[in-house]
Amino acid sequence: MNEGAILAAREGRTKVAQYDLIRSIEKVMLGPERRSHLLSVKEKEITAYHEAGHALVASVLVYADPVHKISIISRGRAAGYTLKLPFEDRKLQSRKEFLDDIAVSLGGYVAEQMTFGDITTGPSNDLQVSTALARDMVTKYGMSEKIGPIALETTAGMPLYGKGAWSEKEYSERVSAEIDAEVSKIINDAMKRAQDVLTKHKKALAGIAKRLVEVETIEREAFEQLLVLHGIVPKKKEEVLPPAVA
Amino acid sequence: MNEGAILAAREGRTKVAQYDLIRSIEKVMLGPERRSHLLSVKEKEITAYHEAGHALVASVLVYADPVHKISIISRGRAAGYTLKLPFEDRKLQSRKEFLDDIAVSLGGYVAEQMTFGDITTGPSNDLQVSTALARDMVTKYGMSEKIGPIALETTAGMPLYGKGAWSEKEYSERVSAEIDAEVSKIINDAMKRAQDVLTKHKKALAGIAKRLVEVETIEREAFEQLLVLHGIVPKKKEEVLPPAVA
Amino acid sequence: MNEGAILAAREGRTKVAQYDLIRSIEKVMLGPERRSHLLSVKEKEITAYHEAGHALVASVLVYADPVHKISIISRGRAAGYTLKLPFEDRKLQSRKEFLDDIAVSLGGYVAEQMTFGDITTGPSNDLQVSTALARDMVTKYGMSEKIGPIALETTAGMPLYGKGAWSEKEYSERVSAEIDAEVSKIINDAMKRAQDVLTKHKKALAGIAKRLVEVETIEREAFEQLLVLHGIVPKKKEEVLPPAVA
Amino acid sequence: MNEGAILAAREGRTKVAQYDLIRSIEKVMLGPERRSHLLSVKEKEITAYHEAGHALVASVLVYADPVHKISIISRGRAAGYTLKLPFEDRKLQSRKEFLDDIAVSLGGYVAEQMTFGDITTGPSNDLQVSTALARDMVTKYGMSEKIGPIALETTAGMPLYGKGAWSEKEYSERVSAEIDAEVSKIINDAMKRAQDVLTKHKKALAGIAKRLVEVETIEREAFEQLLVLHGIVPKKKEEVLPPAVA
Amino acid sequence: MNEGAILAAREGRTKVAQYDLIRSIEKVMLGPERRSHLLSVKEKEITAYHEAGHALVASVLVYADPVHKISIISRGRAAGYTLKLPFEDRKLQSRKEFLDDIAVSLGGYVAEQMTFGDITTGPSNDLQVSTALARDMVTKYGMSEKIGPIALETTAGMPLYGKGAWSEKEYSERVSAEIDAEVSKIINDAMKRAQDVLTKHKKALAGIAKRLVEVETIEREAFEQLLVLHGIVPKKKEEVLPPAVA
Amino acid sequence: MNEGAILAAREGRTKVAQYDLIRSIEKVMLGPERRSHLLSVKEKEITAYHEAGHALVASVLVYADPVHKISIISRGRAAGYTLKLPFEDRKLQSRKEFLDDIAVSLGGYVAEQMTFGDITTGPSNDLQVSTALARDMVTKYGMSEKIGPIALETTAGMPLYGKGAWSEKEYSERVSAEIDAEVSKIINDAMKRAQDVLTKHKKALAGIAKRLVEVETIEREAFEQLLVLHGIVPKKKEEVLPPAVA
Repeated sequence: MNEGAILAAREGRTKVAQYDLIRSIEKVMLGPERRSHLLSVKEKEITAYHEAGHALVASVLVYADPVHKISIISRGRAAGYTLKLPFEDRKLQSRKEFLDDIAVSLGGYVAEQMTFGDITTGPSNDLQVSTALARDMVTKYGMSEKIGPIALETTAGMPLYGKGAWSEKEYSERVSAEIDAEVSKIINDAMKRAQDVLTKHKKALAGIAKRLVEVETIEREAFEQLLVLHGIVPKKKEEVLPPAVA
Repeated sequence: MNEGAILAAREGRTKVAQYDLIRSIEKVMLGPERRSHLLSVKEKEITAYHEAGHALVASVLVYADPVHKISIISRGRAAGYTLKLPFEDRKLQSRKEFLDDIAVSLGGYVAEQMTFGDITTGPSNDLQVSTALARDMVTKYGMSEKIGPIALETTAGMPLYGKGAWSEKEYSERVSAEIDAEVSKIINDAMKRAQDVLTKHKKALAGIAKRLVEVETIEREAFEQLLVLHGIVPKKKEEVLPPAVA
Repeated sequence: MNEGAILAAREGRTKVAQYDLIRSIEKVMLGPERRSHLLSVKEKEITAYHEAGHALVASVLVYADPVHKISIISRGRAAGYTLKLPFEDRKLQSRKEFLDDIAVSLGGYVAEQMTFGDITTGPSNDLQVSTALARDMVTKYGMSEKIGPIALETTAGMPLYGKGAWSEKEYSERVSAEIDAEVSKIINDAMKRAQDVLTKHKKALAGIAKRLVEVETIEREAFEQLLVLHGIVPKKKEEVLPPAVA
Repeated sequence: MNEGAILAAREGRTKVAQYDLIRSIEKVMLGPERRSHLLSVKEKEITAYHEAGHALVASVLVYADPVHKISIISRGRAAGYTLKLPFEDRKLQSRKEFLDDIAVSLGGYVAEQMTFGDITTGPSNDLQVSTALARDMVTKYGMSEKIGPIALETTAGMPLYGKGAWSEKEYSERVSAEIDAEVSKIINDAMKRAQDVLTKHKKALAGIAKRLVEVETIEREAFEQLLVLHGIVPKKKEEVLPPAVA
Repeated sequence: MNEGAILAAREGRTKVAQYDLIRSIEKVMLGPERRSHLLSVKEKEITAYHEAGHALVASVLVYADPVHKISIISRGRAAGYTLKLPFEDRKLQSRKEFLDDIAVSLGGYVAEQMTFGDITTGPSNDLQVSTALARDMVTKYGMSEKIGPIALETTAGMPLYGKGAWSEKEYSERVSAEIDAEVSKIINDAMKRAQDVLTKHKKALAGIAKRLVEVETIEREAFEQLLVLHGIVPKKKEEVLPPAVA
Repeated sequence: MNEGAILAAREGRTKVAQYDLIRSIEKVMLGPERRSHLLSVKEKEITAYHEAGHALVASVLVYADPVHKISIISRGRAAGYTLKLPFEDRKLQSRKEFLDDIAVSLGGYVAEQMTFGDITTGPSNDLQVSTALARDMVTKYGMSEKIGPIALETTAGMPLYGKGAWSEKEYSERVSAEIDAEVSKIINDAMKRAQDVLTKHKKALAGIAKRLVEVETIEREAFEQLLVLHGIVPKKKEEVLPPAVA
């Protein structure tokens, strides 16, 4: 919000527009644009497929946040980026949302592999993010059926009872191996789901990537037109969460 | 007590009422109310079922403390909370009380899963609490039959003999795996008991949750009326501890 | 001694009586009496059985120190306590004495379990003491036949040769598991011996516990009268150590 | 660039030539020339074969950077060196490029072993480089099929989500052994590829090594003439990356 | 030597006699006499057998240093002590000497066990000494045939080559277990040898112990008369080391 | 060189002779002579055989440096020493040279064992040196065929690529055990080679040792005469390294 207000003020406007907020989110999260940090033609093509992979998986999976912007202009350490924003603020995140987020995160890796038969160092941060999410599911949120509702690592949670700290890494090697196996399973399942989405929408992937090479940045509206063009219905807010069972 | 006296003084009263004490407990344990920190409609529903799960399990299991208040108003980092208070101060806590406390702690997790077929990050603190309790049972209080009356980790206990410190984590990997297996067993048994309670009282769960969405906070008296409505007899002090065998 | 002299001086006496010494031992070891820290009726009963368990096992096993006082008045962090004093100062402690000490230490745990079919957090310090003793037997005093006369952990011993320090925890995981198994065996054997004593003297246990609930503190003489009442002969100094074999 | 400008300025030139840049790269990366640090005749021969091994593998494998200079003049701690430069700056590095880089790195080790039936301490830095590359492939870039797209170690990546740090070495012993096995496999495959190249081009290896012993330093043009002489076509920029599949 | 000179000076003598040196060794190694620190009658008997065990094994085994004095007067933390001195200064210690030293060190433990069918905390320092010696044999001096001439732990040795430090505990769990097994074997073999000596000379053991209870301290000459009395020939310098094979 | 110049200057000479250099090497590496630190007759004999063992193995194995001096005069912490100097400075050391160096290092240990049927603490530094060399071969120089060209531990090498540090001890327990097995194999093979040399030249060993006991120090020329006397041809520079295969 601060950054957004500053951006608006610089341009002599007294109201903070959504446009200001998105620019400020980009700046805080990714660092300033680095036009000097140029990609080669080949790297632009790889990056375009990578970002298109993220964006396409995010558009197809039900619980992923919708895409607001895709870009292959270097920012900070990232070659390109895909900006996704939730329809509304969340205090809680569900297991299904985690699983879709991980698949989205692996969308770039999968797109590179499918398109070029090779993988670059580009997805390294995506791998860290998805591994961290998968690990949190298993060790902090009881979201692995095999391990169950046990907290194996602390979060900065509210010490309601305050009785006995479950310090980090107090579990045995056996449990450590079980965690690794569960994390691996979650990651591989998510990769497979990303592969399914991108295989089914191979033409859309190529279409988005090629457009991205041409224009470098695609805003939400233009992106949703591309989706429609390839037969994918853009997300509407009300569809995101299915009704409760009870 | 301090906090309670301050609250009473602020309102010009010279006596500290139980009402002051409960408010002060809430403030010290949970932090101030955060009305600005709003939950979405969906999150309110999830939180209501979560808290109703805690409250219902606490009301049915014999050794759990009775419920004084349920709320889905955000406080500190918690989306909602269920306040339980013992009938009288305790210096000792028994194995059976631990087991019921763990089941109560998992009541929110189980309620979410049963109702929505999904789990959120909401129960993360509950998992830490119940895991810590289960681990203390096994490693500090000799409450696991398999491992027996051995202290595997120190508590801040009175060094009566003072001869030879049993420093933390001096046990082997084999014992570490046994501890993990026992903790896991305790947690899974408790989850099953919570599931049994909430399956049997599914209608009560929905009833409490729905009322909570409407009124946001339910005090003890109103809560007990809801219990009676669903055929559950509220706890009376004298029933809590069965008579000694000897 | 210092504390004892202070106590005597406060009361205008010039001689330090045994009574002063016992009071000073209690104060230094357990902290001051905490009459404000009241136990519930139920907790008083549990504590009475717990302390009676310690005292009875100490009175029956040959190598344990005789009981000087039992109390269920809170002191420091302890709900109650049993004061045992050796007939004379010891520089050496034998394997058989360790084994009886451990059984005495577990007497409270066993009494709770036998009487109430449940265990409380009360024995947590007893478990630490007996585990530490058992571990010292195995790792410092060569008192485990299976592991033999090896020092696996340092004591603050006299470095007679001074050549090569056997630093703490330099043994393998395999030896670590062997230590744990031996400690576990010693503890379980001692628990069984405590169970045998308390099963055989079940009436004495109840008798002592009930008297304790009534009077809160039982001094040595009164305690020995209770023993005699239940057919147990109080210890005499000369019987404690059997004559040498040689 | 700085170093290059300084070198140009020292020689009274106002433009920074490619020649200045290469000299500055050598100086920054390798340290100043150490003509005083003389190799024995035998060591010169070993070093010549070692560098020729690097250069030849780099010239034959498709994704390796082309060779700009080979030298057996001591620089810093290195007995000799082979300078390779990419055709253009890279922000991304692919799996296939890593694999070729590792094979190039092992080219010196393989050349020594093939020629002399012995290995020296000369390749120690090459081994560190290739092991580090192989390990990064497995743990940071998801480039091991067996382990998949998991980040097992952090890079200084952009914390896009910022949720939950996957701290270093949080994996189990089992995963640790899997990493080691994958790293070992990558290294051994690369060694075999280097062996294949140098076996096939044994005469070229001897030819380059012998020339190097005579002239001590071979610049790019002269090196490419040697390649042509032995029937190897020097790399052209456009051939380096095969066209995308999509 | 310093201490010895001080003792001589105090008593107005200008020459340092062997008597001064022995007293100074006792003071530096064991601390001053503590006559106030009295042993019970029972403890005196145990200590006498303990020290007689050390002294007897030292007198029978070929490579052990001869006994200069035995005492059951408390010194520092030790209940009693046996002072042994080599015939001449040693820069080197051999495997056979280590093995005898360890057996001597365990002589007290074995004597207690054989005589009383029980073990006290008395031998704890002996166990540390013999374990440290056994471990040094295995890890520093290549004296375990199974592990061979490998240095598994550093001594403060002269870094002749200075190339590559073999830092402490860099070996695997498997080697750690092998070390433990070898240490255990050495200790158990030495215990058996001490048992053999003391079983064979049971009467001498009782004789020395009983005399020790009566007189508290036995000097070398008196001790050797006791040995002769029981048919044991005291050591002579020239017999200690057998002639070289070569 | 500094030390050598100082020695020459002290003696009023303006040129630094080889004699000065050798004395300075001895002083820097071993510390000053310690004539006061006298060995017993027995220890002198053991030390003589020990040093003769080093010297003889160094004289027979092809890749070991030739012997310049043998001495049994105590220096620093060493009872004796054997000074070897290479024919010329080396920047590279080969696998075969390492293997011979290790065998030379174990020559003293083997000589003691063969001659006296016992081992002393004398070889402890030799064991550290040879273990460190063997470990470096396996973990830093890719000289173990089984483990291959992998760097398992860092040397202070030139960070040519600078990408990703392979930090110390990042390998699994399994690899740790493999390293230990390889190190053990190298050491045992070298010990066997030393045994073969000393068995074959048993008379030479005794001859050198006996001379050493008489004269305490043997310089190069006298040593080579002893070799010739026992039918061993002293090393000549040109024979040390066999011609290259290529």
